[in-house]
Amino acid sequence: MNAPTNLPEIDVVFTILSPHRPGALGALLTVIGEEGAIVGDVKTLYIGKTRSKREITISLMSIDDVDRLRAAINTRSPAQVLTVTDVVFDRHRGGKIASRTTAQLEGVNDMRLIYTPGVARVCLEIADKPESARDYTSIPHTVGIFTNGTRVLGLGDIGPVASMPVMEGKAAIYDRFVGLSAVPVLIDTKDPDEFIDTVVRVAPTFGGIHLEDIRVPDCFKIEDELIRRLDKPVMHDDQHGTATVTLAAVLSALRIIGKTGVDSVKVTQVGLGAAGIGIARLMLHYGFRVTGVDPLPEAQQRILDSGGQVGELGTATSEADVVVATTGVVGLITPEMIRPGQIILALSNPAAEISVNDAINAGAALAGDGRVINNALAFPGLFKAAMDMGAKAITPDMKVAAAEAISELSDPASDELVPSPFHPDVHEHVMLRVKNQLETV
Amino acid sequence: MNAPTNLPEIDVVFTILSPHRPGALGALLTVIGEEGAIVGDVKTLYIGKTRSKREITISLMSIDDVDRLRAAINTRSPAQVLTVTDVVFDRHRGGKIASRTTAQLEGVNDMRLIYTPGVARVCLEIADKPESARDYTSIPHTVGIFTNGTRVLGLGDIGPVASMPVMEGKAAIYDRFVGLSAVPVLIDTKDPDEFIDTVVRVAPTFGGIHLEDIRVPDCFKIEDELIRRLDKPVMHDDQHGTATVTLAAVLSALRIIGKTGVDSVKVTQVGLGAAGIGIARLMLHYGFRVTGVDPLPEAQQRILDSGGQVGELGTATSEADVVVATTGVVGLITPEMIRPGQIILALSNPAAEISVNDAINAGAALAGDGRVINNALAFPGLFKAAMDMGAKAITPDMKVAAAEAISELSDPASDELVPSPFHPDVHEHVMLRVKNQLETV
Repeated sequence: MNAPTNLPEIDVVFTILSPHRPGALGALLTVIGEEGAIVGDVKTLYIGKTRSKREITISLMSIDDVDRLRAAINTRSPAQVLTVTDVVFDRHRGGKIASRTTAQLEGVNDMRLIYTPGVARVCLEIADKPESARDYTSIPHTVGIFTNGTRVLGLGDIGPVASMPVMEGKAAIYDRFVGLSAVPVLIDTKDPDEFIDTVVRVAPTFGGIHLEDIRVPDCFKIEDELIRRLDKPVMHDDQHGTATVTLAAVLSALRIIGKTGVDSVKVTQVGLGAAGIGIARLMLHYGFRVTGVDPLPEAQQRILDSGGQVGELGTATSEADVVVATTGVVGLITPEMIRPGQIILALSNPAAEISVNDAINAGAALAGDGRVINNALAFPGLFKAAMDMGAKAITPDMKVAAAEAISELSDPASDELVPSPFHPDVHEHVMLRVKNQLETV
Repeated sequence: MNAPTNLPEIDVVFTILSPHRPGALGALLTVIGEEGAIVGDVKTLYIGKTRSKREITISLMSIDDVDRLRAAINTRSPAQVLTVTDVVFDRHRGGKIASRTTAQLEGVNDMRLIYTPGVARVCLEIADKPESARDYTSIPHTVGIFTNGTRVLGLGDIGPVASMPVMEGKAAIYDRFVGLSAVPVLIDTKDPDEFIDTVVRVAPTFGGIHLEDIRVPDCFKIEDELIRRLDKPVMHDDQHGTATVTLAAVLSALRIIGKTGVDSVKVTQVGLGAAGIGIARLMLHYGFRVTGVDPLPEAQQRILDSGGQVGELGTATSEADVVVATTGVVGLITPEMIRPGQIILALSNPAAEISVNDAINAGAALAGDGRVINNALAFPGLFKAAMDMGAKAITPDMKVAAAEAISELSDPASDELVPSPFHPDVHEHVMLRVKNQLETV
């Protein structure tokens, strides 16, 4: 059995005083590395004649490792730890979003225009011509992010309120990357029918409906029914955002290894939960041959209903050109299963079915993990394009256009499967490609 | 029958070129006044040696009066109209609010802190200690503004989407005056039970529940039931915001005329709809003697159930010290009904039960109309105080504290009943007085 290769994920900021001389920072970072910690941002606060002060973001396996690392730095490096801050909680204090006015409201004259009595004429205009709501309200620029908190990240059912930091993070990403206004709506029910009814009733508020972190199988029924009942874009990001970025990575990988001929590409999808079935369906839509692996009969039925095949882990993995795994089972894929030249995307977080290093050592041509396949590459541009164009739905062809756009901006020289979500052009490029796709319909 | 005294309410911006000499602007504004229009803001765009260019906001009775006014200015004043803009629609274009991130999100390090993997620890902290959601989410600073659009302003049932410009206006006021994040939620149902269920299900998203523009009698059931079922501030602004500002005006008026002894003050409330019953109940809570006038038996029952009396229009009006009218019936109160020395607040918009001038001419000591009694004086500070303090409800005593705070800042030298909502201290003062009230409980 392959030992799981966990990476440190707990980010802490160390404020450190070190001698201001060549090699001092290197010696410090070496000690940090020897302790199994990973260095993130380094920010210089102060440079004196003999000493400098820096804030260094350090990723640890556990918050309990702080004391050990502090002692190691103080005794074995030329530097000295001043303070340690658990900066994650600082960054979330007070929440991460707010509804703000974009209108001028500085005096009675403004009030008469944006509120009573002026507003009445705008209301009457919309009552008379409902399509004018696109011009005179925030609705067409606002995405509702809906969750009941039943399957949040890898944490399971933690409830709607505890899921809010994730929803606010999604809203922050919408604002930062494409300027969409995104509003989390926490729904306090585990009943999928009640969830559906609630979203339908408040749907007039929003130009798009983003579903997030809803458990299987409820997420399928909820998404299907909302797509059927609403005349606006609806997307469950855990299925389709992940699928879009995974397809982008596969397209990049096939290009790098020089494999052509879409219908000859065999993809094995291991794990047919929300992300897995979303990936399998988009791969099928693209034209790949897809085999699904999952012990659950209902999961097998989902892949069969989608036009794919069902396989057994060992055979299906070894026969595939591309293996994608979304099981949450650490070490499920052993080096012996890997065939030389394969593309291996083991996406479970924080620890994967097989590590990138182990996959490459076993002969994989390219490998990627869940840190690379970041949904934030897809959903902002997809929704922005759909809403700008007044699209009635988010179709598989729109997801393919987004995947191609993402893949086009990855850097083949460095075997990059997808670009960073901070690539300066990626969201604009996704948006334009999806708009082009919509215009060709 | 008293002729209704409508005031111009359609705001339009004229860009005007006029001679740059003493008296020119006065001559222009005189012509505008002769045409029955009212001048709002005057903004100088350009001053030349011989001519100046200004934007003048002008209130008209109807948008159809633009051409007549333009001709009058061009022919009878020294000035010339360059352009006319129906600025209300410009001010609403694109909507008036947006959800924005308050977090730093400039690179991968930020993403790891505010989104995955860092966010997982914040979610787990909230799952473990639910009260920590007050520290690490936007929930405690966010008000949900809920409507189904069944009674919007004086426009009636125009539906949820057409009501959005009003809801965004309320949200803009929350942001501008007290910095609260307010999110409109349009609910597409006229069934009060469905409305209640929907609000209860999404209530975890919000620190406070603001109900707006819901028809009678549904608004009573909806508010009562939500107060019963939710452990956070719930307030129907049409009832209680109006009541709070009306009480403030009455307190100012009594102070100006020197009347003391709360339980000797007789208030007649004409009209027992949402605003009327809200006013009557708060006046009763304050200790005044209240008589309600309304032809509907169920409305009469509401005032009796609240501890007031039922009266007949003529008698109840003439016997009162204070008459408040919220009927929507223009000219309902005739000069003959007014007794010298009374306080008359005829609040219907855009045209009142009796105009301020007619009431004063008939002998009223003080009179006010719906332009003065502006809810925006009350709800921002009330909700801000309640949410900052983690209050479980908005109580009548909190509304009284807010009314007293508002009244204290009105200027008695000018017979002002309430200050402008742009008074630099009024929202802070309301908030502090309501917080003080909460601390004494």
